[in-house]
Formats: sequence, structure tokens, C-alpha cells
Amino acid sequence: MNISAAIIIIGNEILSGRTADLNIHFIAKHLSAVGIKLKEVRVIPDIKETIVSVIKDLSPKYDYIFTTGGIGPTHDDITAEAMSEAFGRRYVLNPEAHEMLRTGYAAKGETLNPAREKMAFMPENVKLIDNQVSSAPGFIIENVYVLPGVPYIMQAMFESLLPTLKHGQTIESKSLNLLIGESFIAAEFENLQKEYPEIEMGSYPFLVGEKHATSLVLRSDNHQVLEEAYKKLKNIFSYWEKA
Amino acid sequence: MNISAAIIIIGNEILSGRTADLNIHFIAKHLSAVGIKLKEVRVIPDIKETIVSVIKDLSPKYDYIFTTGGIGPTHDDITAEAMSEAFGRRYVLNPEAHEMLRTGYAAKGETLNPAREKMAFMPENVKLIDNQVSSAPGFIIENVYVLPGVPYIMQAMFESLLPTLKHGQTIESKSLNLLIGESFIAAEFENLQKEYPEIEMGSYPFLVGEKHATSLVLRSDNHQVLEEAYKKLKNIFSYWEKA
Repeated sequence: MNISAAIIIIGNEILSGRTADLNIHFIAKHLSAVGIKLKEVRVIPDIKETIVSVIKDLSPKYDYIFTTGGIGPTHDDITAEAMSEAFGRRYVLNPEAHEMLRTGYAAKGETLNPAREKMAFMPENVKLIDNQVSSAPGFIIENVYVLPGVPYIMQAMFESLLPTLKHGQTIESKSLNLLIGESFIAAEFENLQKEYPEIEMGSYPFLVGEKHATSLVLRSDNHQVLEEAYKKLKNIFSYWEKA
Repeated sequence: MNISAAIIIIGNEILSGRTADLNIHFIAKHLSAVGIKLKEVRVIPDIKETIVSVIKDLSPKYDYIFTTGGIGPTHDDITAEAMSEAFGRRYVLNPEAHEMLRTGYAAKGETLNPAREKMAFMPENVKLIDNQVSSAPGFIIENVYVLPGVPYIMQAMFESLLPTLKHGQTIESKSLNLLIGESFIAAEFENLQKEYPEIEMGSYPFLVGEKHATSLVLRSDNHQVLEEAYKKLKNIFSYWEKA
């Protein structure tokens, strides 16, 4: 089964260079592990019209959309409102989310205030995503999973929802590291690609000290053909293999 | 002057989660420093049609487009060919690029081979971007700056071309770190935003040990108004300021 996804990182702080994004890599790794193909990522600013238009553009194209950022208590958090607009739903207080927040803060001896209550405002008729870390839930609207931007909170929530997603045929990946620059192996590697067009073959240079080295990566959801191609790859390039 | 940019990260290895991207943050930081506004980032696969369509979509929208990835010597490096197609130019051997490669490899006592020569194939009539690290040049086609994906090489090349870009009014950023959770300061922070709608104000939670803390960030290219707003911000929240 071919299952596709896109990630939308919502955050001025990433575009301005203030903050290095950590969410793309985390989500990408976990999607790969369950056979969901990440097709594209966008990083966009906290501008309502932009969020609305990107959601309208991507939501019909992929099985899953994951957004991070913009669901906190401050005025610059506008993702939930943008989702309401994108899907033409009312932006309302979600009683279940409100109760989660009340209970979560009560457990720390604290009460709600208007800023915290803001985090219970969402589009109508969404499914909540539980947040065991800081109690403010994310939500699912159609095929869009709305998550916070703070990495350690997002990660806990994402891991909890991963088992609920449709899993695809996992893409297995085999790699061979060679102690030689990629230009030396390009021709033979291309021949192997031609022999196995259904396998995604990539070549990634790296350095070992000052020496050029190359990681050859084969990826496919056909594990049997992958094994066969990998065996050939090893035979061809074993001379340069890095221990 | 309002100068805008977008980044296109071309790389299956980022989408598959094999590799964590380091280029977005590097480029974003450097653009900010010279007043170029990064408006969006896309991460896309090494698929020619996708690259062509994203380039055609974004190139007319922004002053500068920076791409990373896909200009190496192996068969999976298809960015240069895609650029030819996107701009309707022939894909040809660039003699100047060829000479750079020849000289670069000669300096290491090496010669060219077809894979290395591939790195001299580009759209017609481009301007080259010098590569002091590994000698394979990038190129500029219309407003698109085509750079390699390997971070340390990309970084050296990007830094060398930064002085050649039109610089905008730099966006100054002032931030105040508070030892209090963001929901406590949300209302007053929003009031300040209403008083200074032209200043971009963001609130970013973080942890100090187990304690909630908040970074309030003010950004603007109007340095005088920024100073004024920041003074007010400090007055309002000085009680919680983190030393």
C-alpha cells in the first residue's frame, strides 16, 4: 500500500534563522519506519492566509499532513484559527480540550486563564491528540494532524499517534560505505541503477579525515529485489568497502 | 528595500529521514543578517518533474531562490538537468566549469573522468559559483542559485556569494527571556503587539531545568520603533527577567 505524507512547519522563528528546526528529521525518520512516504516539506510563516492556502493545496494531495507550530497560548499562535478557515468550520471552544487543560494545570496546582483557555479553541468536530507532557492537546481535522512546535512535546505526541496511522509496506534501506570518492564509482553505480530501475539508488559523499568516502544507499519496498541488488552492489564495490 | 527569498532543499535523503538537513538553518541565519526575508522553504525529492515545477512556481515569486543538492557526479544528481528544463535552455558542457574541475583535480594529482565531467554540464549561459573546497562549481540561472547539498561545501560557497546579493534593510531582533510560562504574559504581550502592529512579535516557550520559561522576540527593520517597543517590553516584564 502506497501511503503518502507532507509536513508543514509553521514558524517565523525557523525562517528568520533564530531556531534550527528539529521536527522535520524526527517526523521523516518515524514515517519511513512505518512505510509512509514523505513527499514534501514546507516551512511557512505564521501568516493566516499562507497557512490556509498551503493547507488547501496540500491536504487533497496526500494521505497525511502533519503541521508543527502555532498552537500555543500567545497571540502569534494562529494555526488553529487558520485550520478553521481552511476547512470552513467554526472556531470554537472544545469542551474536551478545555477539560484536559483544566485537569492538567490542576495537577500542578494551577488554574486556567484566558491565554491557557485559548489552547482549547479549535475548529469544530476535531479529534484530539493527547498531550501527556504539557496537557494542551493537538487535533486532527480531516487528514491534517496539528501538532505543537516545541520538539520534546511534539515528539511525545507524534510517537503516541504513530500506531494509529495506516502503515505502508516499509521501505527497507541498505547502504554500503566506500573509502573512495563518488566520481570513481559513478559509472558502475549507474549501470546497477539501470539494471534495477525500481530501486531508489542514491550516492552521498562524506569525509573520513581528509579522504573522500561515499555512502551508496539502496531503498525499496520490494525486500527480495533489494537483497539481490545489494548483493551485486557488494560484489562490485567490495574492494573499497569501509570496515 | 524589501528583498525576498525561498530555499529549495532537493534530496530524497532528507525526506526519507536518513539525513538531518543542516542547510535551511545556515542559509536562513545568513539571509536574516543581510536583510533578505526568507519567505518559504520546500524540501522536495530528486524527481525531475517535481524540481522543474517547483522552480517554475517559486522563481517568479521571490527575488532569490537558493537550491541545495543534486549537482554531484552520480546518476541521482539531476538538478542541473532539471534547471535546463525549467528555464527552457540547452543542457551543455560549460567550458569554464570544465576548466575549474580540471584544474581542481590536477592540483590533487588527479584527472577528470566522465562522472567528474558530468559536473560541468549545466544549462546554457549561466554564471558560475566558485567552489574552493571541492572545485565543482554551482551556478546562477536567472534568480536561482544552484548549490551543492553537502553542508561544509555549500556553506563555503554561500558565504562567498553573500556579498554579491542585494542586501535589504536588516531586520533587527531583540529578545527578552522570562522565567515564567508564556500563558502568564500572553495578554500583556498581545497588548504590546496591538500597540506596535508593524513589529513582528513572537513568544517561544523553553525549559530551564523543569521550570517553564519564555523567550519574547521582537523583529523589525524599523530600528527606532523596535527600540521603543523593546523598552516598553522590558518595563512590563522586568520582574520575571532571566539573568
